[in-house]
Amino acid sequence: MPDFAEPLARLITEFKRLPGIGQKSAQRLAFHVLRASRDDAEHLAQAVLDVKDKLGLCRVCNNISDSELCQYCSDPNRDGQVVCVVEEPHNIVGIETTRQFTGRYHVLHGALSPLRGIGPDALKIKGLVERIGQGEIQEVIVATNPTVEGEATAVYLARLLKPLGVKVTRIAMGIPVGSDIEFADEVTISKAMEGRREM
Amino acid sequence: MPDFAEPLARLITEFKRLPGIGQKSAQRLAFHVLRASRDDAEHLAQAVLDVKDKLGLCRVCNNISDSELCQYCSDPNRDGQVVCVVEEPHNIVGIETTRQFTGRYHVLHGALSPLRGIGPDALKIKGLVERIGQGEIQEVIVATNPTVEGEATAVYLARLLKPLGVKVTRIAMGIPVGSDIEFADEVTISKAMEGRREM
Repeated sequence: MPDFAEPLARLITEFKRLPGIGQKSAQRLAFHVLRASRDDAEHLAQAVLDVKDKLGLCRVCNNISDSELCQYCSDPNRDGQVVCVVEEPHNIVGIETTRQFTGRYHVLHGALSPLRGIGPDALKIKGLVERIGQGEIQEVIVATNPTVEGEATAVYLARLLKPLGVKVTRIAMGIPVGSDIEFADEVTISKAMEGRREM
Repeated sequence: MPDFAEPLARLITEFKRLPGIGQKSAQRLAFHVLRASRDDAEHLAQAVLDVKDKLGLCRVCNNISDSELCQYCSDPNRDGQVVCVVEEPHNIVGIETTRQFTGRYHVLHGALSPLRGIGPDALKIKGLVERIGQGEIQEVIVATNPTVEGEATAVYLARLLKPLGVKVTRIAMGIPVGSDIEFADEVTISKAMEGRREM
């Protein structure tokens, strides 16, 4: 690699640490910042710091929030009887883009992974049990990822929560819409067969 | 788009202003910063500001530099008789990766574009004429981009500099190595034919 002036090399290195940014993209981004105004650079730098300084977790559901309650927990129009459990805050983004789900959320901040030493105590499960104890929740939709860890977490939650008298459901796994069965792996296809519905 | 907490929404907006970063990438980057440590966020923010605050232009060639002379102008091992003229500082990066060129550079910071009101006075051409006036330079390689603007700039430079007694050359245009003639446009092919060499 050619030598860059030190501050430029450092910014390229910092950009390269971000996910999906390689050497070439990092260079392009760094040169863009270099050409941008001092104001624009300041806004970017400040936004990076504010995300760390001004955001915390919602007291109820552990979603990212700039106040005590996140926008979903503080919205009186959302259905408090249905709670969707996700692994990470950004999973909520995907579910919200459908505009179909009107219930509330609960963020675990991870999934069970005995191999990496992540047990139930490392996840935010206690708060979920407490919420169910308050009696309003009727159904818990487990929307953890369809991975080994996400599945293990779903099975654990079902065993834990069903005795508390709530319905526990799991999002469907199958062939993605717009895709082709030809490209689906065998586990996905067998899940799709298993989850077939009468039409 | 779903609602994000304000600092997160702002960081996503800032990332989206960078070249090649769309909504999804911006979200991924912002959530990455959110998960990273306060220290990492600070390093990124500081690097963004330092690029604006600590870098200036080389007094001789207008390359980006953190001192009065850039690394190429201050390197006594580089050949001062050959100067490669480029449009932007990042063009130097591409030429340096070849490790073939051992001369010096001159950065114009743009290309002639009458349509956008960019005339010769808006480019850093005066310094190049002064450098040639000092007598050391024998050859000027014009490595502006093979676009309408870059070509116009090359023609302008050739007319301006030849009377000063230097050799003015233009980098070759043709089929990219590893590519296929089938995929080349007709202008590129005709340039490749024009520039053919005996073998």
